[in-house]
Amino acid sequence: MVTPEGFPRSPAVLALAGGVGGAKLALGLARCLPPDDLVICVNTGDDETFHGLHVSPDLDTMMYTLSGLYNQQTGWGLAGDTFTALEMLGKLGADTWFNLGDRDLATHIRRTQLLSEGKTLSEVTTELNRSLGVAQHVTPMSDDSVKTILLTDEGKLPMQRYFVGRRAEPRVSEVTYVGVDTATASPGFQNAIAGAGMLVLCPSNPYLSLGPILALPGVRQRLRAFPGKKVCVSPIVGGASVKGPAGKIMAELGKQVSCVEVAREYRDICDIFVMDRQDRSLAGEVEEMGITPLVTSTIMETEEDKIALAKQILALAK
Amino acid sequence: MVTPEGFPRSPAVLALAGGVGGAKLALGLARCLPPDDLVICVNTGDDETFHGLHVSPDLDTMMYTLSGLYNQQTGWGLAGDTFTALEMLGKLGADTWFNLGDRDLATHIRRTQLLSEGKTLSEVTTELNRSLGVAQHVTPMSDDSVKTILLTDEGKLPMQRYFVGRRAEPRVSEVTYVGVDTATASPGFQNAIAGAGMLVLCPSNPYLSLGPILALPGVRQRLRAFPGKKVCVSPIVGGASVKGPAGKIMAELGKQVSCVEVAREYRDICDIFVMDRQDRSLAGEVEEMGITPLVTSTIMETEEDKIALAKQILALAK
Repeated sequence: MVTPEGFPRSPAVLALAGGVGGAKLALGLARCLPPDDLVICVNTGDDETFHGLHVSPDLDTMMYTLSGLYNQQTGWGLAGDTFTALEMLGKLGADTWFNLGDRDLATHIRRTQLLSEGKTLSEVTTELNRSLGVAQHVTPMSDDSVKTILLTDEGKLPMQRYFVGRRAEPRVSEVTYVGVDTATASPGFQNAIAGAGMLVLCPSNPYLSLGPILALPGVRQRLRAFPGKKVCVSPIVGGASVKGPAGKIMAELGKQVSCVEVAREYRDICDIFVMDRQDRSLAGEVEEMGITPLVTSTIMETEEDKIALAKQILALAK
Repeated sequence: MVTPEGFPRSPAVLALAGGVGGAKLALGLARCLPPDDLVICVNTGDDETFHGLHVSPDLDTMMYTLSGLYNQQTGWGLAGDTFTALEMLGKLGADTWFNLGDRDLATHIRRTQLLSEGKTLSEVTTELNRSLGVAQHVTPMSDDSVKTILLTDEGKLPMQRYFVGRRAEPRVSEVTYVGVDTATASPGFQNAIAGAGMLVLCPSNPYLSLGPILALPGVRQRLRAFPGKKVCVSPIVGGASVKGPAGKIMAELGKQVSCVEVAREYRDICDIFVMDRQDRSLAGEVEEMGITPLVTSTIMETEEDKIALAKQILALAK
């Protein structure tokens, strides 16, 4: 196993993340660790082509968050971005239902160009993050295409079409990851599984964010055998998702909308389950699964909240 | 010969044009003619790929001018355009010497996407112009790649690198059109040569703008045999180019910097040569070549100037 260029052989922490919630905890971890001690593996099941450009929503949310350029109001996109090009694209006959700011477009243009030159998504991700001053190691889950498709009462919808185009309104009956069976975990991700001292499952959607990552061939088995501490932070608090459609989808899939259900999803790859104080009465149920519950404040509004949660998690390694 | 979709079988006027000067006269002609009576064939020898996007500077100058969106100060680009994406592209490590505004970028993104879907540059040009409300018929000179390369004292430079990147400063010893021998005139251009009643060579650079068009296989021969009136407007006034490096390049190529020299370049495809009042003393030299001189005001500052010159030209058809 070759360590990818610039990636540490033995990072202290491997974090798995999706969109906004994952990026929040990743920022907290980044504030607490030397950059070489943190590898963040990001979902690419939402990647989509818009206007011929390769858009990686979760990778971008992570990059913008870690570089400090992110829009704190929305959680996605860049602070103060404008939408001039998108308006013109609309005039030119393009379908512009997916919001892309002018500065954000630059990211997609650059990514698409570098990919067309033959670089892998991993290489491009490293290059883009370095150019914006992100010193932590961000890796896509895979350099191969995996597409999260939701089977809904309106038919099959790719993730962004469901989430942005249809505002997560259709009823979901199944979530599939098209292409995952033949995809390979990225070199940076594989390297971190082999070398990291601790695994953190960030508070991301279990089906739409961490699901694709964990469905990659061999990943779940290798994480089961992972020797370090495995910590999961619940994205479900008080019987609903903190942000996004995780709770709604859980209900539609016939599952209990509860942090206990999240713990159950991860029971084979979780030693310690971080759950919110609001759910303290459920700690016993988590414990019965053989998982140690850690009841604390998990809502991350300020940067201090993110750092405080990250510190508590990192203290578990000892 | 099939008439391309939307193109008139017998347009009144076929205009050949390059950048800003050509677009000025084309706008004048557009104001005087029903849309179906005007086909404008535009140079694509300057086309370039920036950030993986297909940029057609002369086609865009024409489209922005005819749609009224153009920047009247610079002559190129869109009025009030911003440069947010370009600044971000620079941060992301891209080389951003070529100015591309946010709205302008949308054009290149859309063009690149439509080309990647298998449409020809002609089809894409028609679609973009229609979407911005341009009713005249704008056609690229060819759907094949032709690259204008300047041999200079700094080596071989593609047109945009010479013109924008090096501000037309290097000394030019030769101009070549790479790919022209195997390129085909576009369907819209061929159709107009066959059907038009009048040919207008707009006041564009003879080497960098009209040169590539006239170098396409068969074009010059067919224009020689063109049965209608052939009118050329001099881009050289008072011994210098009105705009751009035409005069400088003429001198470097060892030619006389004079409208007479322009008439000589086109003597086989020009019945009437429109020259500025400043050059009235040279009318006799033009006449000696067997070309009828028309001495008038050729400087087009206001829209009224453009319309006035267009009217005088169109009157020559009778």
